[in-house]
Amino acid sequence: MKNILVTLDSNYLKPLKVMLKSLFINNQNEKFEIYLMHSSIREEELEDLNRFVESEGSKLKIVYVDDSYFEDAPTLLHYTKAMYYRLLAFKFLPQELDRILYLDPDILVINPIDNLYNINIDSYLYAAAYHNIISIKRINRIRLNAYDIKEYYNSGVLLMNLKLQRETIDEKEIFDFVKNNRTKLIMPDQDIINSLYSKKIKSLDEKLYNYDARYYNYYRITSNGRCDMDYIINNTVLIHFCGKRKPWKKSYSGKFHSLYKHYEKLALNVKY
Amino acid sequence: MKNILVTLDSNYLKPLKVMLKSLFINNQNEKFEIYLMHSSIREEELEDLNRFVESEGSKLKIVYVDDSYFEDAPTLLHYTKAMYYRLLAFKFLPQELDRILYLDPDILVINPIDNLYNINIDSYLYAAAYHNIISIKRINRIRLNAYDIKEYYNSGVLLMNLKLQRETIDEKEIFDFVKNNRTKLIMPDQDIINSLYSKKIKSLDEKLYNYDARYYNYYRITSNGRCDMDYIINNTVLIHFCGKRKPWKKSYSGKFHSLYKHYEKLALNVKY
Repeated sequence: MKNILVTLDSNYLKPLKVMLKSLFINNQNEKFEIYLMHSSIREEELEDLNRFVESEGSKLKIVYVDDSYFEDAPTLLHYTKAMYYRLLAFKFLPQELDRILYLDPDILVINPIDNLYNINIDSYLYAAAYHNIISIKRINRIRLNAYDIKEYYNSGVLLMNLKLQRETIDEKEIFDFVKNNRTKLIMPDQDIINSLYSKKIKSLDEKLYNYDARYYNYYRITSNGRCDMDYIINNTVLIHFCGKRKPWKKSYSGKFHSLYKHYEKLALNVKY
Repeated sequence: MKNILVTLDSNYLKPLKVMLKSLFINNQNEKFEIYLMHSSIREEELEDLNRFVESEGSKLKIVYVDDSYFEDAPTLLHYTKAMYYRLLAFKFLPQELDRILYLDPDILVINPIDNLYNINIDSYLYAAAYHNIISIKRINRIRLNAYDIKEYYNSGVLLMNLKLQRETIDEKEIFDFVKNNRTKLIMPDQDIINSLYSKKIKSLDEKLYNYDARYYNYYRITSNGRCDMDYIINNTVLIHFCGKRKPWKKSYSGKFHSLYKHYEKLALNVKY
């Protein structure tokens, strides 16, 4: 049994189904407990999602977050309190869980996740990948004024050591950081993880566990041709559709467009 | 039970498996008899293919063509006698077969084929699609000097009325045509079908049954955006990787590259 964490609102339920369907198809001998942290999804939508997950032999666990919990937490323009969910998930998840894999809904799982899920993170809070593309790295490090940050990790895939997080992470530290850095924070949860916990993150190979779908040619060229389509389809576990252009939108175009739509068809044609 | 015809040599066995795997996956409630016309594939390769097909619940029927049959048939530079196989398949297939669907091995089947297979072709020799792209049409019609040919059909997908073919098609007419047009024939079987039988071909919608993978933008724009990726994945039955650049080659790049590699992985990972 493997634990998956997602945090989202109603707008992302369709992509979530696509992500989950791709997870189930490519991990057929595995059962999952899908923890959904939310504060605003309607009962009918939750029931529909529950039927979808159960029809695949897995379980949906609803973690309802009462917004009053974050009453005194600082806010940022354009962001709801949901920006804290993945950072403080350890407070809301069952105490007996030691480990969970957080996944953004704009991800396709195209190979088995065992090797990722079972990585040794005993002395780390997270395992995550950074996108080693010069422009992304420089912009974010300059923005955060973070001279001691070596890499800027992407928070769309986070393998979490919940046990160590309960012992180590102080929510007050997070709230104080937000108060003191309001103007700098653009992707708040990702910025917070990088600013506060960078040294406690185990690095993952982005080509396997957080492949940025926008940069096919970049990966291919910088790997001397090794990371081509053949390699990706047979080895990459998580393809992440980062950025504003999303594969479920009409105007999308990209190397993994046809593959995304293929999984979308499978997800939305499930009878349950 | 539906009949599928393929004619190829050892070089195309891998793409053939990908094509067949995509056919089986997307037609799960259907059984197929796969007729393979060949003259040179080795016994071990045929046994391997047989296990592959049987593991999917379908049947492989080997139609061995003794080259002596074509001893007196005219040849063309760069082409073997295999260029006659799909034209004269009706002579080699069991007499009780009335209908068969010929498919090139550079095709993906991404939706159920029922509607195509069951089309009424009582008064036609074939059903086929033409690629309505100005440059392709004009070049081929000028080349064949074929002023009375309205369209130039692609012979990669041919639904065959075997009964009417047995009554109508004269192999001598075909051989004579080749003798008299040696210099004009570039894609011989396709050129022959178009030159001799154009009026006896029922037109299929190319966007559904012979989508040319090279022309995504052309299809999208000329359909006012209707034939986008969403439409294709949910409606198109046959994607045809026409032209010299093939999706199983290292250097390939195209809109359906990731989807092709996905099916290739499924085909080559089958245990049988």
